[in-house]
Amino acid sequence: MLLYNSPVSGNCYKVRLLLAHLGLPYERRDLDVVDRSNRAEVLGSLNPDLRVPTLVLDDGRPLAESGAILWYLGEGSRFVPADRFERAKVLQWMFFEQYTHEPAIAVVRFLLAYSGQAESHAALVESKTRDGYRALDALERHLAGADGYVVGEAMSLADIALYAYTHVAGEGGFDLGGHPAITAWLGRVAAEPGHVTIGA
Amino acid sequence: MLLYNSPVSGNCYKVRLLLAHLGLPYERRDLDVVDRSNRAEVLGSLNPDLRVPTLVLDDGRPLAESGAILWYLGEGSRFVPADRFERAKVLQWMFFEQYTHEPAIAVVRFLLAYSGQAESHAALVESKTRDGYRALDALERHLAGADGYVVGEAMSLADIALYAYTHVAGEGGFDLGGHPAITAWLGRVAAEPGHVTIGA
Repeated sequence: MLLYNSPVSGNCYKVRLLLAHLGLPYERRDLDVVDRSNRAEVLGSLNPDLRVPTLVLDDGRPLAESGAILWYLGEGSRFVPADRFERAKVLQWMFFEQYTHEPAIAVVRFLLAYSGQAESHAALVESKTRDGYRALDALERHLAGADGYVVGEAMSLADIALYAYTHVAGEGGFDLGGHPAITAWLGRVAAEPGHVTIGA
Repeated sequence: MLLYNSPVSGNCYKVRLLLAHLGLPYERRDLDVVDRSNRAEVLGSLNPDLRVPTLVLDDGRPLAESGAILWYLGEGSRFVPADRFERAKVLQWMFFEQYTHEPAIAVVRFLLAYSGQAESHAALVESKTRDGYRALDALERHLAGADGYVVGEAMSLADIALYAYTHVAGEGGFDLGGHPAITAWLGRVAAEPGHVTIGA
């Protein structure tokens, strides 16, 4: 398999983290997340949205969207529950991550730490920071009443999806000091056998 | 089942459309999408993100996020492909809808047609309109080369997810005149036996 990747993208890290847990070999081709001028040329026929991650299977079929790639790779493994309701709960948190959590936390992190243009986006940083804390508060309330992981008592795709940008939220100026359930959960995910870091 | 619903929300319409196709009975409780002051009281214990749709199963278990609700209801039906790769492709387009399509098209529609505050959001409307056309262009390119539906030759959850806000994009000022593949596909989805309108 070939993964069109960015080393700093949390969405790409999710895929690399799952591939590591599953012990699946793959090649990486890194794309720039700031200069996107070659995206149409490289990804035009593979991903209508021209984003990374994009995974190309050994038979050449392309798959886009981190959540869909996680599902494709994870089905049948210990990271997708066998129970129908729990499976839907995993997707609930994966959609929450893409709709509410990532568009705030990942965007602030990108603007502050990677764009080189943080000053010209002060108002956006401020409003997205507020949105990001709202998402973190929702996750904190959930984890405080949960059984150790986002869904049930074992790690699932939901943990992988939410770990990716939560564990680097500090790069966007988010302080997790007031979120003890999130902090404990981050430690549990990072302690799983087979874990790899975002820089690996 | 009890569906916490909004009559104008495309995300809620997705669930109602699938429930109609599946012939499943349910109750509706409508919430306001402009005045959200009662959300914590009504949804606090059901949905950490306090959004509609939220579905409560007959045994009391709550499920949030339109994509997860669609998956829960649709698994095992003709709307979720039996093939693993096609299943992932359905999720690819559902995540595309929530990450790229809906945050542009649904937001412009809401601001222009429902918020009562269109004038004070002119810059946001302009940038989100640009994003919305980019999403529609990506969908158009895909459908122009597709086999009649978003994934394969039959309707799936991907069509239901993308139909919801695409068919009312005109309320947000989007002109689909330059998108013939989308226009033809909207007609096919609406002509499916069992179809219900957003106003039903």
